Amino acid sequence: MQVQPVTRHKVAIVGASGYTGVELVRILANHPYMKIASLVGDSSAGQQYAAIHPAFQFLDLPQISSFGDFDPEAHELTFCALPHGASQRIVSAIANRTRVVDLSADFRLRSVEQYEIWYGRKHQAAELQAKACYGLTEFYRTEIAGSRLVACTGCNSATGLYALLPLVQARVIKLDRITIDLKTGVSGAGRSARVAMLHAEISEGCRPYSVSRHRHLAEFDQELSIAADEPVRVVFTPHLVPQNRGILATVYVIGDASQIHRTLARRYADERFVSVLPLGDIPGTRDVRGSNRVHLGVAADRNPGVVKVFSVLDNLTKGSSGQAVQNANLMLGLDEDAGLGMLPLLP
Amino acid sequence: MQVQPVTRHKVAIVGASGYTGVELVRILANHPYMKIASLVGDSSAGQQYAAIHPAFQFLDLPQISSFGDFDPEAHELTFCALPHGASQRIVSAIANRTRVVDLSADFRLRSVEQYEIWYGRKHQAAELQAKACYGLTEFYRTEIAGSRLVACTGCNSATGLYALLPLVQARVIKLDRITIDLKTGVSGAGRSARVAMLHAEISEGCRPYSVSRHRHLAEFDQELSIAADEPVRVVFTPHLVPQNRGILATVYVIGDASQIHRTLARRYADERFVSVLPLGDIPGTRDVRGSNRVHLGVAADRNPGVVKVFSVLDNLTKGSSGQAVQNANLMLGLDEDAGLGMLPLLP
Amino acid sequence: MQVQPVTRHKVAIVGASGYTGVELVRILANHPYMKIASLVGDSSAGQQYAAIHPAFQFLDLPQISSFGDFDPEAHELTFCALPHGASQRIVSAIANRTRVVDLSADFRLRSVEQYEIWYGRKHQAAELQAKACYGLTEFYRTEIAGSRLVACTGCNSATGLYALLPLVQARVIKLDRITIDLKTGVSGAGRSARVAMLHAEISEGCRPYSVSRHRHLAEFDQELSIAADEPVRVVFTPHLVPQNRGILATVYVIGDASQIHRTLARRYADERFVSVLPLGDIPGTRDVRGSNRVHLGVAADRNPGVVKVFSVLDNLTKGSSGQAVQNANLMLGLDEDAGLGMLPLLP
Amino acid sequence: MQVQPVTRHKVAIVGASGYTGVELVRILANHPYMKIASLVGDSSAGQQYAAIHPAFQFLDLPQISSFGDFDPEAHELTFCALPHGASQRIVSAIANRTRVVDLSADFRLRSVEQYEIWYGRKHQAAELQAKACYGLTEFYRTEIAGSRLVACTGCNSATGLYALLPLVQARVIKLDRITIDLKTGVSGAGRSARVAMLHAEISEGCRPYSVSRHRHLAEFDQELSIAADEPVRVVFTPHLVPQNRGILATVYVIGDASQIHRTLARRYADERFVSVLPLGDIPGTRDVRGSNRVHLGVAADRNPGVVKVFSVLDNLTKGSSGQAVQNANLMLGLDEDAGLGMLPLLP
Repeated sequence: MQVQPVTRHKVAIVGASGYTGVELVRILANHPYMKIASLVGDSSAGQQYAAIHPAFQFLDLPQISSFGDFDPEAHELTFCALPHGASQRIVSAIANRTRVVDLSADFRLRSVEQYEIWYGRKHQAAELQAKACYGLTEFYRTEIAGSRLVACTGCNSATGLYALLPLVQARVIKLDRITIDLKTGVSGAGRSARVAMLHAEISEGCRPYSVSRHRHLAEFDQELSIAADEPVRVVFTPHLVPQNRGILATVYVIGDASQIHRTLARRYADERFVSVLPLGDIPGTRDVRGSNRVHLGVAADRNPGVVKVFSVLDNLTKGSSGQAVQNANLMLGLDEDAGLGMLPLLP
Repeated sequence: MQVQPVTRHKVAIVGASGYTGVELVRILANHPYMKIASLVGDSSAGQQYAAIHPAFQFLDLPQISSFGDFDPEAHELTFCALPHGASQRIVSAIANRTRVVDLSADFRLRSVEQYEIWYGRKHQAAELQAKACYGLTEFYRTEIAGSRLVACTGCNSATGLYALLPLVQARVIKLDRITIDLKTGVSGAGRSARVAMLHAEISEGCRPYSVSRHRHLAEFDQELSIAADEPVRVVFTPHLVPQNRGILATVYVIGDASQIHRTLARRYADERFVSVLPLGDIPGTRDVRGSNRVHLGVAADRNPGVVKVFSVLDNLTKGSSGQAVQNANLMLGLDEDAGLGMLPLLP
Repeated sequence: MQVQPVTRHKVAIVGASGYTGVELVRILANHPYMKIASLVGDSSAGQQYAAIHPAFQFLDLPQISSFGDFDPEAHELTFCALPHGASQRIVSAIANRTRVVDLSADFRLRSVEQYEIWYGRKHQAAELQAKACYGLTEFYRTEIAGSRLVACTGCNSATGLYALLPLVQARVIKLDRITIDLKTGVSGAGRSARVAMLHAEISEGCRPYSVSRHRHLAEFDQELSIAADEPVRVVFTPHLVPQNRGILATVYVIGDASQIHRTLARRYADERFVSVLPLGDIPGTRDVRGSNRVHLGVAADRNPGVVKVFSVLDNLTKGSSGQAVQNANLMLGLDEDAGLGMLPLLP
Repeated sequence: MQVQPVTRHKVAIVGASGYTGVELVRILANHPYMKIASLVGDSSAGQQYAAIHPAFQFLDLPQISSFGDFDPEAHELTFCALPHGASQRIVSAIANRTRVVDLSADFRLRSVEQYEIWYGRKHQAAELQAKACYGLTEFYRTEIAGSRLVACTGCNSATGLYALLPLVQARVIKLDRITIDLKTGVSGAGRSARVAMLHAEISEGCRPYSVSRHRHLAEFDQELSIAADEPVRVVFTPHLVPQNRGILATVYVIGDASQIHRTLARRYADERFVSVLPLGDIPGTRDVRGSNRVHLGVAADRNPGVVKVFSVLDNLTKGSSGQAVQNANLMLGLDEDAGLGMLPLLP
């Protein structure tokens, strides 16, 4: 099915073995205008990618190389899928020699001070923060297209922001009465060995986590305050549910359900990856699993003025790697939706 | 291990093949002071119980009999585990000849009018409603002990009420700012064939349901308004998560976290089945799976005055069948915790 | 990403709401040379497809029509994804007016007598059976390309046949010592309401089923006997495991591991959708989930002469709907792999 | 419900935080004649047990102590639930001062040579091996009752041995034609951080493992050869399925189905924890989840002489911690089934 265009842009994935790295491979291997020219990972350097992920053994992928052997200039764009903290050193070493789409949290915050407050350490590439663009594509399209360093959003943040940003911008909800109750699958925790993420610890149960302070709050604060032009501080509670993919944000706001629905429907009318369901229809995370899509639903509560907005996306696709490719498309001057036609996997 | 007391009270289970029926069998088969004398079910009459639930074939259980052959007077107490609507006819036929613990929704509401509003039909045993006692044991202990008809609570309602009733009674939260975001496992939907409840429709995803109107709201309204002595109307959103057992209620309230925590800790200090975790500790549904317990947690939000109260229970145990046995213990003059020592199953 | 070719063949899906129907929509909506011109289903006629499967609401799909309104001649090919038994009536009504790829069991057996034996009733379109071609693409390529009625294989059968057919043809294993122990996900049971398929009945457990007689045995008998040119009767035990997609066949044979591995490797060397792993490497069902691929592994047992062959595929993709599209590609003269580049979804 | 006998035997659990340790706590906390006097664990010494497993915070349990502070003589029996290898050092230090039930693999093999072959290192307490008794209760009852060191079986081995030992002893099957295809849940892999055991790596898929050599084979070889009085070498393939608890062994043998069924039925007629289902009935792992039970089923294959025997148990209960308590009951002269009446958790 792959149509071979005349030229395909060479791209690299640094940190290719984790879940966002795997998802990048899944998307990019079928991308009509990009070609995975390098897979970089220090811990697995020298191995075939299929030795780590046998699912992909039939693909013609480069062998994994060490970062020391990586030549950023040979790539028009580099996806950096490293853990938080590790990313800033790598990105600062390559950012002037290749476009970078970073999937970590390291460049999401505009303020160096806020980074230190939320992440508890000094940023090691503070000067780059100023240049980085926040990667919520539908809201920063022009900036992303002109940027050489884009920081993909947190997956939790993205889920909430799709529901809230248009409402805050349009001032159709009370800014001091926003509550986000979020349910998230486990792949967002990454592919590192942790007792708390074992199947035997996760399945058959759900639980809240980071209830008093979660780092994705920093992004909510930043983006909603910009949109409102005044400080906005949401109430936010993430919960871990026993599924691999998918985030559902249940957002409680104060406003008029019809106006809220209309505001969202208008804002996203021309967005290919965002669907606003008819008023009263409710999305589930399975509706978007494996796709680069957001589904939004709006329902009035029986208490006048209380409205529930529901937002779902796949944390690995629209919440990180799909979003990353969408941004990369813009940065390389391609169609924004190139390579992103994957449909939801049901069931 | 079973210690045989001199006498064991004869009890019956009407509607024994569904999930609350199975859970009653699991509990009662090991109960030191009750004996399952009859299993009643019209659709499976004449069968051995093990033909439906082979897990229990080693138990010495009576054959399933039809309701027509059921003699209520031969039983000191009858558990009625029928679907909503079906229960009221059966209960009205037997209520003057045996004590009844009803697990359906048919006798939970005190008001005949409210029943019609929420359930959309006339109650067929309206006169019995007045006599029925609401089965939230820790709050209606004396009434339950003296009652001959106890209506077990909805499992969702119970989860929220354990968190809220002491706070409403003590007036330490704002009554018009209560939001309950609830996550529930699938066994609450019962053991009937429905496409929406297939494994292939449930696993790997979560979704809200009945977001604008859920019948358990009627119980919240009733019980919280009694506690407040004024109308209370919570905001409530249930969500289906891919696990068999367990409900987590995340309750957003306005108040002081320490005072809220103290109020709950004091209220439940002497309750064997309810634990209030240290302030800031957060429960998960796996902590109580298979046990007759409630765990409550309290955490302050970063926004001053906003407090999150978390409540977990197993919908089939403390949320229905365990609660039913706890109530039956009271009605028969037994120790309230007799037969209810089952510990959580981990993992 | 979709490249619009000059012409796309009009195809129809009859029975579009079940799981194989949904999977056909997932594949065909991105197919470069086919266009879904009709969705046909009597029970959901008049509805939008998104009303049944909201995941697909952003797709431009035809409204579901009744079979009475369906014009087979307007379609170059019709996928028939109806339940067993229902399919033969429909197919016999349209088979002379459109090419048909049938996903049911109705046309898999060459012998009318065998059909009656295994399915317990007379075939209603016996004359069509003779014309139907068995849809195991890699083994019936030429016949499929020239056929107007192709019967896709059973998903269990396909999983076993990929492992066994080359070995039986090459006579490198003992024909009377073949045991197939198969583990299958639940989506193969279809999207109809059954208590046994509820999430609460499936999750957290596995069990054998149809251990003495399973209809897919008829296909094993038919195809392996043809390959051997003598009757072959395998031992076969299917098991239900708590996952939505994926089948794993563990096949116990008597032979030489290296020879067996070499036989499989050679046979599939040029097959795009079948990978034979290095000797000793073992596949899992997740390696192929959502893709149109088969992975095969071979390992010697410690007992000399005993060899284990492992075969995995996704029952909905390579096991039915992906196979169906692969066959349709051949029937329409297209590239065999057109539209089938979907990569496995991990995790 | 707990009946307090006059005296309860003081027991210790060394290695209490892993899954077999947790299961021991679940069982022993309700045991009528044993009392958990010490919980020992070096890595968690000084902590409350509830800090690790909040599910048990309402229990009155001793604080976790270090092994250095552990006085074996203060305990009539010590359960040792440490990982393989670690156990032999600990057990050799305490075995002459307390009865020991060891749940690791360290003392299962009678032969020091076999231990070295299968575990790849010298045994550090070889002299104790001779004294240790294999803990398959129903087959070593007398020896266990008189032993001071009992080695609980591997959970996989136990599942297969319940099906096979009576058949081998009675010589009703061919000894060189035994194939065990085993499906096991993930809790058997323990509660240590491993990428391969993450929820995101396990759910929605199954796969074989250790297909050429699995250590539990050593137990099959040992016990079946003793039973046969000649070497028996089964074919064995374990598979990981996405569930927490439960093992299903599908055992393919050559013999007469009725004779096989009769042999099993007679052998287990008086065994409280083993049920042989009617001929043709098939067990599933959910039937025994959380209970100390084994269910066995027998079905004839369509190929004359081929018989399938199915065996299910819960790996954490009858496969390890329940078995351990059953053995401890015998060693302490208690009723064998004391404290083991837990019923299966459905669903």
